[in-house]
Amino acid sequence: MGAGRVERSLDRGRMRLPDEETPVPSDEEPPDGWYVDRRAWLIGAASVLGATAGELLSPALPTAGESAPEDPTRVPGAVPSAYGVRSRFERAQRVTTATHSLTPYQSLHGIVTPSSLHFERHHNGVPAINPHRHRLLVHGLVDRPLMLSMDELTRFPSLTRTLCIECSGNTGKEWKDPVGRTVQETHGLMSTSEWTGVQLATVLAECGIRPDAMWVLAEGGDAAAMTRSLPLKEVLNEAVLCYAHNGEALRPEQGYPLRLVIPGWEGNTCIKWLRRLKLGAAPFMTREETARYTDLMPDGKARQFTFVMEAKSVITSPSGGQRIEPGFVEIRGLAWSGRGKITTVEVSMDGGRMWDQAQLQEPVLPKCHTRFRFGWRWKGEDVLLQSRCADETGYVQPTRAALVAARGVHSSYHYNAIQTWKIARDGLVTNVHL
Amino acid sequence: MGAGRVERSLDRGRMRLPDEETPVPSDEEPPDGWYVDRRAWLIGAASVLGATAGELLSPALPTAGESAPEDPTRVPGAVPSAYGVRSRFERAQRVTTATHSLTPYQSLHGIVTPSSLHFERHHNGVPAINPHRHRLLVHGLVDRPLMLSMDELTRFPSLTRTLCIECSGNTGKEWKDPVGRTVQETHGLMSTSEWTGVQLATVLAECGIRPDAMWVLAEGGDAAAMTRSLPLKEVLNEAVLCYAHNGEALRPEQGYPLRLVIPGWEGNTCIKWLRRLKLGAAPFMTREETARYTDLMPDGKARQFTFVMEAKSVITSPSGGQRIEPGFVEIRGLAWSGRGKITTVEVSMDGGRMWDQAQLQEPVLPKCHTRFRFGWRWKGEDVLLQSRCADETGYVQPTRAALVAARGVHSSYHYNAIQTWKIARDGLVTNVHL
Repeated sequence: MGAGRVERSLDRGRMRLPDEETPVPSDEEPPDGWYVDRRAWLIGAASVLGATAGELLSPALPTAGESAPEDPTRVPGAVPSAYGVRSRFERAQRVTTATHSLTPYQSLHGIVTPSSLHFERHHNGVPAINPHRHRLLVHGLVDRPLMLSMDELTRFPSLTRTLCIECSGNTGKEWKDPVGRTVQETHGLMSTSEWTGVQLATVLAECGIRPDAMWVLAEGGDAAAMTRSLPLKEVLNEAVLCYAHNGEALRPEQGYPLRLVIPGWEGNTCIKWLRRLKLGAAPFMTREETARYTDLMPDGKARQFTFVMEAKSVITSPSGGQRIEPGFVEIRGLAWSGRGKITTVEVSMDGGRMWDQAQLQEPVLPKCHTRFRFGWRWKGEDVLLQSRCADETGYVQPTRAALVAARGVHSSYHYNAIQTWKIARDGLVTNVHL
Repeated sequence: MGAGRVERSLDRGRMRLPDEETPVPSDEEPPDGWYVDRRAWLIGAASVLGATAGELLSPALPTAGESAPEDPTRVPGAVPSAYGVRSRFERAQRVTTATHSLTPYQSLHGIVTPSSLHFERHHNGVPAINPHRHRLLVHGLVDRPLMLSMDELTRFPSLTRTLCIECSGNTGKEWKDPVGRTVQETHGLMSTSEWTGVQLATVLAECGIRPDAMWVLAEGGDAAAMTRSLPLKEVLNEAVLCYAHNGEALRPEQGYPLRLVIPGWEGNTCIKWLRRLKLGAAPFMTREETARYTDLMPDGKARQFTFVMEAKSVITSPSGGQRIEPGFVEIRGLAWSGRGKITTVEVSMDGGRMWDQAQLQEPVLPKCHTRFRFGWRWKGEDVLLQSRCADETGYVQPTRAALVAARGVHSSYHYNAIQTWKIARDGLVTNVHL
């Protein structure tokens, strides 16, 4: 419990707040999905307005350990800094482990992921790279090998796309058991940003692509020298060599100063700290595409080069670890597809028997998060809350049963089943498998 | 001159770089718009490739005062932090004065302004507000006055819009003389973000709007108690009470925890630190709308309540203070309109006699920045570089002469004339008035 709870207790002696019986979320929990009770508001508001306006707008109470003036209108404010920071009352953060960090979707809004909270997966840490020394080598089956500095890359014709990058391992721990306690733990290995850079085709046109070039090797400049082979024809006009992210230079964890971004493909193909592109006649069979990023099927064979992330959706609020109260709840979530635009999202309260159409927030962009919402009134009953999306190819997000029937439970990657959040009668939300 | 220049000199003894004759921009200057010379690249690249791959990818050189390993692939990287920060090699920053801060468009890409670089204008500093104690009072000509906490506001049905907010004083110093040296100085009082919150109409529906309510007073919780009157009918379905900005909670300088955002209207109507809405039958005639935000016309009368920001565009690269070299230059800029979508942007090299159509980056959103680009080859001649936009109402951005003829030069606000950047034969770009 954070400052809110303490302060609310203090407040109580002073004035009756509209929601005084509502548990106050801790700083780690989002306010989303807490109930709206029109009647309680109005009664509360009426009694509140019995106090004077001055008392109401500036309650003279201690701030429970957080420093803010009792009345901010009485104290000249600070001058903004040259590079701003968030309020000290905000604490949403990534869960960070030795190999990855997870975006806290229970605390986020809209579709843009704040750069400071973008998910991250690395194979040997985040390198410190001096952009003035960084070079991209383009060689192999090209007429004219090139070595490019960052200054040269930024002079090329550029483009910008808002895209979701999803790790192939996102939700991967859900193959067997419902282990993720929050949406951050289940679905935190994905993020959406505005990416700017140079089309791969533009750079390769400078080198001259030889007719026998069919694959391109992309190599990172990190301590793992993370390396993937990509089919050239499929990525030539789609892949972007990105140097900017949400308006500014890439963040170090996103590949500073240069990242290959392949819209809709699994995150590990979007090579960070990109230092080398080599064109070849066949895949290069790197460790990452033999020992690692393959999908073990029920018959014991493994699928290889499964690049595209299929359509998927998740309700971010209410979600695991949150608690709701009877009354109005806006169900909020995200849907995305590696094959194009999301066309519909439906929401079910009974584990997938009945479905209602959710509202999609414009703009709906291809290979990008789409925010959906559904207004609902909870009466305190047991609920099995689900969302199901479809994309413009007609593909519909599968149930967990259908996904497991096709794929078994021995994969680590490409889990895109419908997520179920169970809402118990006490309002607590948990992750369950049906 | 930053680390780049020093290092480039050091590099020179080791290997011939493709662009070794190109001046290296300082850290304060963007790399955009520097020339692309295909021949120089290819010659450079060929000679570079005479070195071994190991030498090329990891030049064993000191880093000129910046700390990065000589070879990042030989050193395990850092573990990401819970809330990420940018590379220590990046230094784009706001120019910050006692009353405002300016977004550095010469260094930015795409349309999303990084939250840390969002422009800012305050009337008595940036208050520190405890969101748990913050309340919004809604009163005046309503059936049921309300006092709402942040928890309550976030429970309402929500919406998200990507919008440009422009200060009415943006480019205001250009009324008389071309005083802005950079695009940050001329056009830095605007920014684009994804805003999430509650529609004003949703909150007012809870209160019940009385039939005689025609205006709404919005008041901030800062030390200036910044206050504006807004015509209710026009803002009811457009205005958003925002609590989130680019995915996360508002930054303090953007009104944390609550800001009124009116799409397309001058920034000062988008009251930050919003604490009060009062409905009335007439405008409240606050100081901000009598002594301040009016437009003095040539006949000595002043226009009042000029809310909408008309269509405007600016080339961000090349722009004031940058220097270009002969060869390929991608002209990059932003266009926007407070009345809807941008339909066309044209670019002129001769001060407005001949115009070419620029390419607009999708998505083109209403009342939002639109990124435009135009590929060009500079041969070293004198250039008067301009951009001119039109919006979906058919309005065309005026020349400076036309604007001054209509409005005189005694306004401070709503300057939206075509911007001219003069490119001299030495490649230096400066702000001029034609």
